Amino acid sequence: MTASSSLPPETVFDWLDTEAAKRAEAGLTRRLRPRPAQQDELDLAGNDYLGLARDKRVAGAAAAAALRWGAGSTGSRLVTGSTELHAELEHELARFCGAQAALVFSSGFAANLGAVTALSGAESAIVSDKYVHASLIEGCRLSRADVAAVAHATPDAVRHALSTRRKPRALVVTESVFSVDGDLAPIEELAGICREHGAALLIDDAHGFGVLGEGGRGAVHTAGLSAAPDVVTTLTLSKALGAQGGAVVGPRRVIRHLVETARSFIFDTALAPASAAAALTALSVLKSEPGLPEKATNHAVDLSMQLKAAGLHTTLPEAAVTSVRAPSPEAAVSWAEACAEHGIRVACFRPPSVPDGVSRLRLTARADLTESDVERAVKVIAETAPPGATA
Amino acid sequence: MTASSSLPPETVFDWLDTEAAKRAEAGLTRRLRPRPAQQDELDLAGNDYLGLARDKRVAGAAAAAALRWGAGSTGSRLVTGSTELHAELEHELARFCGAQAALVFSSGFAANLGAVTALSGAESAIVSDKYVHASLIEGCRLSRADVAAVAHATPDAVRHALSTRRKPRALVVTESVFSVDGDLAPIEELAGICREHGAALLIDDAHGFGVLGEGGRGAVHTAGLSAAPDVVTTLTLSKALGAQGGAVVGPRRVIRHLVETARSFIFDTALAPASAAAALTALSVLKSEPGLPEKATNHAVDLSMQLKAAGLHTTLPEAAVTSVRAPSPEAAVSWAEACAEHGIRVACFRPPSVPDGVSRLRLTARADLTESDVERAVKVIAETAPPGATA
Repeated sequence: MTASSSLPPETVFDWLDTEAAKRAEAGLTRRLRPRPAQQDELDLAGNDYLGLARDKRVAGAAAAAALRWGAGSTGSRLVTGSTELHAELEHELARFCGAQAALVFSSGFAANLGAVTALSGAESAIVSDKYVHASLIEGCRLSRADVAAVAHATPDAVRHALSTRRKPRALVVTESVFSVDGDLAPIEELAGICREHGAALLIDDAHGFGVLGEGGRGAVHTAGLSAAPDVVTTLTLSKALGAQGGAVVGPRRVIRHLVETARSFIFDTALAPASAAAALTALSVLKSEPGLPEKATNHAVDLSMQLKAAGLHTTLPEAAVTSVRAPSPEAAVSWAEACAEHGIRVACFRPPSVPDGVSRLRLTARADLTESDVERAVKVIAETAPPGATA
Repeated sequence: MTASSSLPPETVFDWLDTEAAKRAEAGLTRRLRPRPAQQDELDLAGNDYLGLARDKRVAGAAAAAALRWGAGSTGSRLVTGSTELHAELEHELARFCGAQAALVFSSGFAANLGAVTALSGAESAIVSDKYVHASLIEGCRLSRADVAAVAHATPDAVRHALSTRRKPRALVVTESVFSVDGDLAPIEELAGICREHGAALLIDDAHGFGVLGEGGRGAVHTAGLSAAPDVVTTLTLSKALGAQGGAVVGPRRVIRHLVETARSFIFDTALAPASAAAALTALSVLKSEPGLPEKATNHAVDLSMQLKAAGLHTTLPEAAVTSVRAPSPEAAVSWAEACAEHGIRVACFRPPSVPDGVSRLRLTARADLTESDVERAVKVIAETAPPGATA
């Protein structure tokens, strides 16, 4: 193929318009809808599971930290970006989870990228549930490892991939609570399989941490794996903790290794002090109100059961996420818009955000919902359902 | 090779200790040194070029935004994470740079990852300066494009790679100001070469934006390329603007394409409102004080000239970064530690943070330095120089 040359500069990005037209044709156009500071809408789309993003203690801690430490961290973690706030947050996260150590990243995306790449490499096999989050998939792609993406939540597929691998080391990658449907991975069984095969287990507990287990300690803690020498957990500070950032929690030597080798840690500006302080305060709120997580999960079950009773295809939530199937991407968009017109904000998930290609409304419950919020939401979602959405 | 199996779980991560021992042997151990809120040290290591991270207006805006909007953005940009603050920041960034549109990411790392991957692909060739930042390299690795990493700041190498490429589309990737030595890419010449060969040009202006050009509009603006239909600029909000986050600035259709396809945008929680507000206020400070950037660059030149006069191997700064060569990684570490003992914080850059493998002290100048700060720093750096550091 010969290279195209001397195109007028205006035409260099013409292919982007072609791609946009294809997306429009497939009902996959996406657009930003900036929201105001105060909304009347009932939010069932965000991941602020405990309602802490706007908690006065949490937001107040963010504000105080900005004034005390400055708006930005000024550098990468290994240069000037590590403050005593970051260190305290890492100490408290590890203690809360029952792990040896923790490391804060600027996002959950960066934490997943760093953990997967630094804990694998050319001498490793990675066995990953094929429904894991994009950040874990990007980590696998960057890893130089042999990567097997296996059937969703299927321990036998993991066992088979581990036993037939051609590399000495292995890392099994999964989410605890899958982000689209809110279903749970069989992590105890996976841990057992990993031990049979000398593999490490990496669990993204983004949607379990703060929501599941004793006082919100997460799915890995519930499974008794948070202190395991062969298990690494990734977390986010931007969902249940209502802040921004991500973290890796695990054995001390894993954390040390990430500090020294994870490129998304080394080459990234550190999390802003305000976000670190917000997460730290949210964690202390969670410790003082250990009943918060159950409120969120109860509301999620109520939502799901009532939607099912209304004839919709909804998943049974294991944490605070549930989803409702839509007959097409276009129908999902119109449905979400109709809900918004009635004051209910739901997320519309279409390819490539849905691993099975099925478009959905994705609903999240929060601890601060009321029973009447749930009833109102169910009524609107059911009444606006497109043809083909009911069973 | 048969897979190792049934290892005791404690041994699964033994290889991390082996790797740590190798790094220790090579003088490449890294450790975190959390800093307090108030420091007596003179900071020549951070990237807060204009001294805005702790500016009362900027930090105050961050604090007010946390209280008004909440500590976190609660979701990804396409779900609940886009606030009117994000939209306003994007509008102002584009206007300031003289571009059609802008898009804010949660970090400069994420912006680079998103821009490189979304603007290339399997049908593209990427021609990248081999000294570009890790985030651009990761983007290239994820891109599925044919990637050629060519000689540093060498237009002929770019021309050759473009003319011999085997893919119809092409993206040339460079930094404007290189982050280690502070030298400048020949971006006008690169733009000309791109046009001869029908290629797009992606310029990471992380260390130029807020520091170079008219009122700090950056190196791309100075080159007259900020409104070009075939040029895309990536920025950071965490250096000159003293906040956190990153951005892509360019043609409207490029921004729309990133919204709809960049995985590090779609699958990441949006930047916290406090950081967006801090960046927005820092931008308005910069507009009202257009002389700030030149103060930073003048101090950088003073630092460099005086260090050179003291016999050290220093680079001539084109922006606010300069570096001083060290004879070995171990010597660089001891040198930086000796500076710290004398109250001067400098960054110690060793492999893999230095693309040529040469360890260095990396120094950054800030607008709020004084002449006596510079003199004191030069005196300490020169007096603590290890054998072999002087010419």
